[in-house]
Amino acid sequence: MKLKEIGEFGFIDRFSPSFQELLTKNLTGIGDDCAILPMNDQEDLLVTTDLLMEDVHFLRSAITPGQLGYKSVAVNLSDIASMGGTPIGTFLSIAIPPDMDVEYLDELMAGYHAISQKYQVPLLGGDTTKSVKHLAINVCVLGKIEKGKARLRSMAQAGDAICVSGPLGDSAGGLKVVLNDLAQVDDYSYLVERHHLPEPRIAEGNLLKEFGGVHAMMDISDGIASDLKHILKASGKAARVKLDQLPVSDELKRVCQSQGWKVDELASGGGEDYELLFTVAADRVEALQKAFTNQFGKSFTVIGQIEAGEPQIHWSRNGNAVEFSKGGFNHFG
Amino acid sequence: MKLKEIGEFGFIDRFSPSFQELLTKNLTGIGDDCAILPMNDQEDLLVTTDLLMEDVHFLRSAITPGQLGYKSVAVNLSDIASMGGTPIGTFLSIAIPPDMDVEYLDELMAGYHAISQKYQVPLLGGDTTKSVKHLAINVCVLGKIEKGKARLRSMAQAGDAICVSGPLGDSAGGLKVVLNDLAQVDDYSYLVERHHLPEPRIAEGNLLKEFGGVHAMMDISDGIASDLKHILKASGKAARVKLDQLPVSDELKRVCQSQGWKVDELASGGGEDYELLFTVAADRVEALQKAFTNQFGKSFTVIGQIEAGEPQIHWSRNGNAVEFSKGGFNHFG
Repeated sequence: MKLKEIGEFGFIDRFSPSFQELLTKNLTGIGDDCAILPMNDQEDLLVTTDLLMEDVHFLRSAITPGQLGYKSVAVNLSDIASMGGTPIGTFLSIAIPPDMDVEYLDELMAGYHAISQKYQVPLLGGDTTKSVKHLAINVCVLGKIEKGKARLRSMAQAGDAICVSGPLGDSAGGLKVVLNDLAQVDDYSYLVERHHLPEPRIAEGNLLKEFGGVHAMMDISDGIASDLKHILKASGKAARVKLDQLPVSDELKRVCQSQGWKVDELASGGGEDYELLFTVAADRVEALQKAFTNQFGKSFTVIGQIEAGEPQIHWSRNGNAVEFSKGGFNHFG
Repeated sequence: MKLKEIGEFGFIDRFSPSFQELLTKNLTGIGDDCAILPMNDQEDLLVTTDLLMEDVHFLRSAITPGQLGYKSVAVNLSDIASMGGTPIGTFLSIAIPPDMDVEYLDELMAGYHAISQKYQVPLLGGDTTKSVKHLAINVCVLGKIEKGKARLRSMAQAGDAICVSGPLGDSAGGLKVVLNDLAQVDDYSYLVERHHLPEPRIAEGNLLKEFGGVHAMMDISDGIASDLKHILKASGKAARVKLDQLPVSDELKRVCQSQGWKVDELASGGGEDYELLFTVAADRVEALQKAFTNQFGKSFTVIGQIEAGEPQIHWSRNGNAVEFSKGGFNHFG
């Protein structure tokens, strides 16, 4: 049997049960954005790691080395943000093709440094080694959070409003611009930048974890059609989502209109926006919106609600139920 | 300029100064086997990570998937051992070629599980993704150690005896058996097993860190000719090492004799033995040897001594100074 027949989640399901017995109390194992470990009386430790492979996650011809260095840290900081945590430090493992220019690597590390400085996160170690052909970058990030404050995928409750912290689909639109080799100007360059330079929503996550009534949380890496299902499975709940409520940038709308792309497919199925997806008790939404807008000068968007039921998403558009077959980005599709 | 002109350490030297400013107090950055972070009043956190790339660190045709899974954890546990620490948990990032058999991965994870169970270290998370061609495996391990007990590369003192916890060169001999396609029987199979299934010296490291007079410590991953230099540079000391005192297994001696390989080149320059290299106050060696032998039923070996002076190794054989040009394994050689 080939791996592509069962996919990455199928593979994880095959080995993870045998490791359950090794978990001691207070350890959260495989299955959330970060692992949670006890650190001290006040705080828990968060750990997350992401492996970026050339020609799978990025094309060397399409992303500048500086953007690549920036993004490789951003996607991990986003996992820390998605629990409500604060990053402590990063670890970089990099496997480098032997003919690579040092100048390329200098730029890559300049991008890595720029985001490290922006979020004041030190680089604490790693591994530098050789690759036969493809550049491989693994970043591991440690973070911390006050004990008991981490927001998990399993915390959604029936009646919760389902919310997202910012526009959806920009990154997927940017990827289409790159793959279709469209001129990167105006709206098109905006989308490509959103794809190459995502921002981890650390401050937003910090506000949300402090706010009573915010329940489940995760970051949007594979697209809400896929990511929301993780929350539903972990929480044992169903969801209703209104496609017409998905927040979409004007830039994406205009590009979709002129290219004939379906905007709600990109907004629901496209990955790598790295906005936060969270659920909030319905009676707390208004107060949270006020606090959120006050602090960030932008609002979050309610896109649906959590219900009792089998873990699936019931989509609607302008009040009419619709089937939605295109899933999120599947690594082994 | 190509990376192979400056090597991996040259690359690290280029970017690490710019990250210094981001280090806050109590954080040990790049440069030791593990990073050390404050965890709580009693303990520090240790973090290490290693990236294994197919056709660079392993050949899929030469190592079984079970051995590969075992070794990918072992080399990281060895870094925890080398500080005197105890492992807490592991994180596995794996990039998989799409045509790979699930059965191969099952075996790989069985090996990963075997060592996890042997040392009672849970798998706490990771990332599973696709690779275009080569299998890539990054393991990150967290460990802990009582505050102030971690043994660093910088702690060697003039007059210290330089010691190793077990035989040297077996792994390098095993690699030569594999690369020369020799029949893997008897002594030859012993060496290959030492190459494919290294054991992290966690218990040994735990005894050593408790023992007054044990100063610098690291694990032997690149060969003592290379690894000892890291201690000398970090400590600002010189070393005298007696090639004739290097501990060598009978198996390696016999294979070297019949193949015409130079045993002390393998023992001094060959990597991946994952024994511990440590320095001990001269007047504590005898007491330490007694405690070590008592606990492990084997002795460690004194191979030379630390002296004041420029960070270099002065080699001798049977009392005569010798030049030693072949360095340890250089990833970008």
